[in-house]
Amino acid sequence: MIVVVKKEHEQKQFDNLVKFIKSQGLEVDVSNGAHTTILGLVGDTSKVDIDLLLSLDIVENVKRIQEPFKCVNRKFHPEDTIVEVAGKKIGGTNFNFMAGPCSIESEKQIISIAEEVKRAGASFLRGGAFKPRTSPYSFQGLREDGLKLLLKAKEETGMPIVTELMSVNHLDLFKDVDIIQIGARNMQNFELLKEVGKTKKPVLLKRGLANTIEEWLMSAEYVMSEGCKDIILCERGIRTYETYTRNTLDLSAIPILKDLTHLPVIVDPSHASGVAKLVKPLSLASVGAGAHGLMIEVHNDPKHALCDGAQSITPDAFGDIVKSVNVMLPIVNKDLQL
Amino acid sequence: MIVVVKKEHEQKQFDNLVKFIKSQGLEVDVSNGAHTTILGLVGDTSKVDIDLLLSLDIVENVKRIQEPFKCVNRKFHPEDTIVEVAGKKIGGTNFNFMAGPCSIESEKQIISIAEEVKRAGASFLRGGAFKPRTSPYSFQGLREDGLKLLLKAKEETGMPIVTELMSVNHLDLFKDVDIIQIGARNMQNFELLKEVGKTKKPVLLKRGLANTIEEWLMSAEYVMSEGCKDIILCERGIRTYETYTRNTLDLSAIPILKDLTHLPVIVDPSHASGVAKLVKPLSLASVGAGAHGLMIEVHNDPKHALCDGAQSITPDAFGDIVKSVNVMLPIVNKDLQL
Amino acid sequence: MIVVVKKEHEQKQFDNLVKFIKSQGLEVDVSNGAHTTILGLVGDTSKVDIDLLLSLDIVENVKRIQEPFKCVNRKFHPEDTIVEVAGKKIGGTNFNFMAGPCSIESEKQIISIAEEVKRAGASFLRGGAFKPRTSPYSFQGLREDGLKLLLKAKEETGMPIVTELMSVNHLDLFKDVDIIQIGARNMQNFELLKEVGKTKKPVLLKRGLANTIEEWLMSAEYVMSEGCKDIILCERGIRTYETYTRNTLDLSAIPILKDLTHLPVIVDPSHASGVAKLVKPLSLASVGAGAHGLMIEVHNDPKHALCDGAQSITPDAFGDIVKSVNVMLPIVNKDLQL
Amino acid sequence: MIVVVKKEHEQKQFDNLVKFIKSQGLEVDVSNGAHTTILGLVGDTSKVDIDLLLSLDIVENVKRIQEPFKCVNRKFHPEDTIVEVAGKKIGGTNFNFMAGPCSIESEKQIISIAEEVKRAGASFLRGGAFKPRTSPYSFQGLREDGLKLLLKAKEETGMPIVTELMSVNHLDLFKDVDIIQIGARNMQNFELLKEVGKTKKPVLLKRGLANTIEEWLMSAEYVMSEGCKDIILCERGIRTYETYTRNTLDLSAIPILKDLTHLPVIVDPSHASGVAKLVKPLSLASVGAGAHGLMIEVHNDPKHALCDGAQSITPDAFGDIVKSVNVMLPIVNKDLQL
Repeated sequence: MIVVVKKEHEQKQFDNLVKFIKSQGLEVDVSNGAHTTILGLVGDTSKVDIDLLLSLDIVENVKRIQEPFKCVNRKFHPEDTIVEVAGKKIGGTNFNFMAGPCSIESEKQIISIAEEVKRAGASFLRGGAFKPRTSPYSFQGLREDGLKLLLKAKEETGMPIVTELMSVNHLDLFKDVDIIQIGARNMQNFELLKEVGKTKKPVLLKRGLANTIEEWLMSAEYVMSEGCKDIILCERGIRTYETYTRNTLDLSAIPILKDLTHLPVIVDPSHASGVAKLVKPLSLASVGAGAHGLMIEVHNDPKHALCDGAQSITPDAFGDIVKSVNVMLPIVNKDLQL
Repeated sequence: MIVVVKKEHEQKQFDNLVKFIKSQGLEVDVSNGAHTTILGLVGDTSKVDIDLLLSLDIVENVKRIQEPFKCVNRKFHPEDTIVEVAGKKIGGTNFNFMAGPCSIESEKQIISIAEEVKRAGASFLRGGAFKPRTSPYSFQGLREDGLKLLLKAKEETGMPIVTELMSVNHLDLFKDVDIIQIGARNMQNFELLKEVGKTKKPVLLKRGLANTIEEWLMSAEYVMSEGCKDIILCERGIRTYETYTRNTLDLSAIPILKDLTHLPVIVDPSHASGVAKLVKPLSLASVGAGAHGLMIEVHNDPKHALCDGAQSITPDAFGDIVKSVNVMLPIVNKDLQL
Repeated sequence: MIVVVKKEHEQKQFDNLVKFIKSQGLEVDVSNGAHTTILGLVGDTSKVDIDLLLSLDIVENVKRIQEPFKCVNRKFHPEDTIVEVAGKKIGGTNFNFMAGPCSIESEKQIISIAEEVKRAGASFLRGGAFKPRTSPYSFQGLREDGLKLLLKAKEETGMPIVTELMSVNHLDLFKDVDIIQIGARNMQNFELLKEVGKTKKPVLLKRGLANTIEEWLMSAEYVMSEGCKDIILCERGIRTYETYTRNTLDLSAIPILKDLTHLPVIVDPSHASGVAKLVKPLSLASVGAGAHGLMIEVHNDPKHALCDGAQSITPDAFGDIVKSVNVMLPIVNKDLQL
Repeated sequence: MIVVVKKEHEQKQFDNLVKFIKSQGLEVDVSNGAHTTILGLVGDTSKVDIDLLLSLDIVENVKRIQEPFKCVNRKFHPEDTIVEVAGKKIGGTNFNFMAGPCSIESEKQIISIAEEVKRAGASFLRGGAFKPRTSPYSFQGLREDGLKLLLKAKEETGMPIVTELMSVNHLDLFKDVDIIQIGARNMQNFELLKEVGKTKKPVLLKRGLANTIEEWLMSAEYVMSEGCKDIILCERGIRTYETYTRNTLDLSAIPILKDLTHLPVIVDPSHASGVAKLVKPLSLASVGAGAHGLMIEVHNDPKHALCDGAQSITPDAFGDIVKSVNVMLPIVNKDLQL
C-alpha cells in the first residue's frame, strides 16, 4: 500500500502518521520525491482502513498495491480449486452444465425437465423455489413447497441440485441442497454470506448487479473466511446504460478472474440477456472466454404452450447448445462432465 | 400496458394471446396499424408478468404505461406523507437533520456527539452499530453492544435514533429504535423488507448502489404492502464510471420522486462523496433540489485526533452547514424541525 | 409510435394534438382505455420529433415501436451485406483478421509487421497514423508521414489497409486507404460522418465509448444515407464502473446487431481490455458470439525490446490466435478469408 | 508516478527498466518492500506513456500520483480564472445566466426571446444554429442562416452570444461569436479542440456524455495548450443506467472541479434532465453546489403553441428561476452579472 503525503505538512503530523501506521504492525519505507513524499507500507495491509487514512489532512492519496482478498487469491493458492459435489467435478479442466426451469411449478414439470436436461447433457439441476422479484406483486416462487419438489426431482433423477437461498431463516430447509446459490441481489448481504459460509456447503455466488470484480471476490472471501472452501463464481451480467439487453454480460471478467483467483467461474447467459435467441451465441462466447460451466434456464412449461410458441429455451434447444459447446471444448482444453 | 404484436402471425396465435390476457381480468383494445398491431391492456396491470409476455413468439414488444407501484404512488395518494416520529415531523414542508457518527465506538463518544449535533440543529441521532463492510477484515461495528450505547444516548439526550438493520435475526434488538434504516446493499433484500414492513416501524430506505428510481420505489412498495406507512427514502449516490467521487449523487432523483411518490426524500451527502469538503456544497445542492432532510456523518473521534487534523465533518462544521441551510430553506418553502 | 395522452385534458388540446400529428403525414388510431387514451401513429415515424411531443402538456409518454433507422435495418434489407474490398469479402459467412501495430513508427516496422501478420493469416493491415489521445502531451501519431508509410506497406505486401480518419481536413490524404476507420470518440461527430459517407469508400465504424446500440446504428445511418453502402461495425468495449479492464467488451451486442442490421460486425479485443493476456480468450469469445472478424494489435517494436519481455501480442501470439479461431469457425458456420 | 515491480524478475530487466525511465529525464527512487519493489518517478511525468509501462513484463502496476493536466491545474495557477467577454465577467464571485432557444428558428423568434431573457436577467444569449442530432432525419438546425440570425439578435439587443461549433470547416463563420461552444459529442474531437484553441476565443466546453472529470480537464488542456486562456466548463449530465432522466446531472463534479482547476464551471440543467419541471430544482441545486452560472433553454415558439401548453421553460418561468437564484446567491458568496 502506498500513502502519498501532501507537499505542505508539519513534521509533527508526518511523525504521527508514521507512528500510527507502525502501530498497526506495518513497516514504512519513505520515498522523498521532488513534489511528493510517498510511504510504502510493508506487511499485511489487508486490514488497513483506507478510508481512515484518506480522511487525514496530511494524506493526499492512498493506493492499494496488493489485492485486499487472501483466501480466494491465486497468489496464495496457485492450484485451481476443484469443487466436488455428488461425484461431479467443477473447475480446472471440467466443464459443467447446470440446467432447469426459472421457477419450480409442479412435480410433473420439475421431474420431466430434470430428465430431459440430464439426457441432453446437464450434470446439475437448477430450479427456483424462493424467487427474488422486483415487485411484491410478482410470483415469489413456491418457496418451501418448491424446494420439496426439487428434492423429489433430485431423488427421482439422481441429479445434484442448485437453488437460491434468500434468508438465513431458511437455512434449515437447505440441508439436502447440493449447492446453495446466493443471488445477485444478495451478493453483499454480508450477514447471509457469513451464515452460509459456516455451513461449509458448496456455494454458487452470483455477481451483484453492479458490483466490481474486487467486491465480488471480497464477498467470496466472506464465505471462505468462515471455513467454506467450495465456492463457484457465476457471472450473470452487469448493469450498464445499454437497454437492448437486460444486463451486459461481462465476459472479460472470466479471464481476469482466472488470473486473480483459484475458484471456478461459470456463466449464466439466460439472465444476462433476457432474450432466448441470445443464449446460444452467449454460451459459445462464454466457453471461448474460458468459463468452467454454464447455467441455463430450460422450460417446457404448459402455461407457455397455452399461447403457442414460447421463445424460451426448450430441452431440444438446450441439447443443441450442449452439442456445439462439446465440439468447442477441446479448443479451450476442457471436458464435459456428465 | 401496450403489447406490440409481430407483423407475421397466425390468427390462432393472436386469439390465444387475447384470451390469455383476458384470463387475467384485463380488457383488451386492439389497434391495427399499417406495420404493427397494438393491444392496449385495460385494468390493473401491476400483476402482469412482462417477461412472460415478452417470451411469446407473437409478441414483438411490451411497454408499461402505468407505473408498477401503487401504495407509494402519488397518483393514488396525492397528499405528502408526513412521517411522525417522537414528535418530529418528516416530509411536507418540514426539514430535518439526522446526524451522528459513522460507527458507534464508546458511550462517551456517542453521547458527546449526540449532545453536540442536537445543539447544532439535528433532530435525529444516527449511528452505525451493525456495519456493512466490503471486506470481512474491516471493523464490522460494535453490533449489539453498539446498539445499547445508541439507546443510552437516546435516553440521555432525548433524541430519536436511526440505525441500520442488516438481518431479520436482529429485529428483536431494534424494538426501541425510532427509525430502522435499510442500507443500500440490502435495498433488494426482499425477505428483510417484508419482515421490516410487518413491524410497522418507520423505515429509512436507502437507494441501492445501482438501482433505478423505479426499483427503489418497488422496494418501498414491498415494505408498504406489508402495512408500514412511514417510509423515508434516502438518496446516497449511485454507481457510475466516474472515480473522483465514491458514488455520483443523483440529485435529479429528488424532484422526480416528489412527482412520483408522496413519501419524504432525504439525502446522505457523506456517503455519496466520500470526501468531507464536498459535504457542504452537496448539502446546499440537496436543499435546492427539494430534499426533505439531510443525513450527515459527524465525528469527534479521538482516534482521528491521534494523527492531527482529520478532515471529517466536526460538530462545528456541521453547525455551519445547518446555519447555511436554514437561511436557504424559505426559498424552497421549508422549515427546520428542531 | 405510441403517444399516451394524460387522463385530464381538454377536448381542444386533444383535437390539436391529433391535427398536429396528421399534419406530419401520419394516420392516428385512437384507443380509449380505462385510465389512459393511447394514440397509435401509423406511417413513417422516423422523422417525428419525440422530444417535441414529450414537451406537450397533454402528453404523458411517447414510446417508439419501430426502430428509428432505415437504411441499416435488416427489416428492409434481409440479406447480409457483404463488403468487398480489394478482393476480400467481409460479412456473411466470411471471417477476417485485421492486424497491425497500434501506431505506425517507421517504414521498417510497418512493413515487417505487415509481412508477419499476412503470413499468420490476416487479410487486412491496420495501423494508426492519426492517433486520438486523451492528453495533448501524448504521441499523436506520425500523421501524414505515417499514412505514407502505411501506403508503402500496402504496396510492398499487397494487403489492403484500414486506418483512422480524425478530421474532414484530412480526407484528401485518405484516397488510397481501403477502409476508413471512424474511431470511438468520433462516432457522433456527425459532420465527419456525412463527409465520409459522401466518399462512398468502405467505412469501419467503431462504437462510441458510451453509446447505445441504437445510437451506433443511427451513426451508421448517417453514413449510409449519404450513399455509402459498405459499413463495418466494430465493437470495442463500453464504459462501465468496472476498473479491472479499460472497457467492458459488450459481446451481447453481436447477436443483437445481427438481428437488427444486415451490416457485418467485428470486434476489437485489444482496445477493449487493454491487457495482452485477455486478447486470446476475448477473441475466441467474439467468434462464439458470432463476430465476422477481429481487429487485433500486433507489435514487434524494438522500443519494447529495450526493456525485455513486453507483454504485447507478438506475431507468434497472433498466429496462435488465428489457429485456434480457425478450428472454431466451422461451429459458427464461417470461413477464414485469406 | 509509482511503478510497482513484479516480485519475480531478473536483475537485468530491472536495470533496463530504470535506465528506460531515466532516459525520459526522470529520477527514480527505489523502495524495496517485503512483497513488492516500488519505483517513485520524480520529475515531470505528464508525458510518460503509462500504457507502454504497463505492457512491460516486469511491471505489475503503474499509479499516477500527480494529475496529468498542467495549464488548467489549480496547483500551478491558484487564482480563479475570470473570463471577460463583452464587459461581462464569468468565474470567481460572478454568476451568469446564459439563456435562449434550443434552436434558432426565425429572426422574430430569436430577437424576441433575446429581449425577454435579457429583461429577465440573462447576461448571454444562447441559441443553436448547427445542431448535433442522433438521427440524420432530425432537424439539423438552420446552420449558416441560423448563425446570421443569432448575430442579428446580438446586434439588436447588445447581448454577447454563445453557440455550438461542430466542424473546423465552419470556423470562419464564427468570428463574431463571443463564446464558441464545444458540445458533449465533440469533447474528445481533438482536431477540433486544437483548432479552436488557436483562435484564442473564449470556449465553453461541455462535458462528454460519458467522460470522466479527468478526461474533461485533459480536453480543456488541449484547448489551453494552444494558447486559449478563456475556457468555461459546462456540466450537462452523464450517462448512467437510470432512465427517468435523459442523463444524470453530476453536481458533485462542481466542488471537485473548483478544487482541481481555476476555470469557471457552469451547469446546463435543461439538457441534463430533458424535463422542463426539473429545471428549477436543478438550477437551485447547481447554485448550492457552487456553479458559476447556468445555461438554460427558453422557448416562446409558436409551433409549440399550436398544440396548447407546451411544457418548456417560458420567459416567465425563466424569470422566476432568476429571482430565486438571486435570493440564494449571497449564501454561496456570488453576485448576479447583468
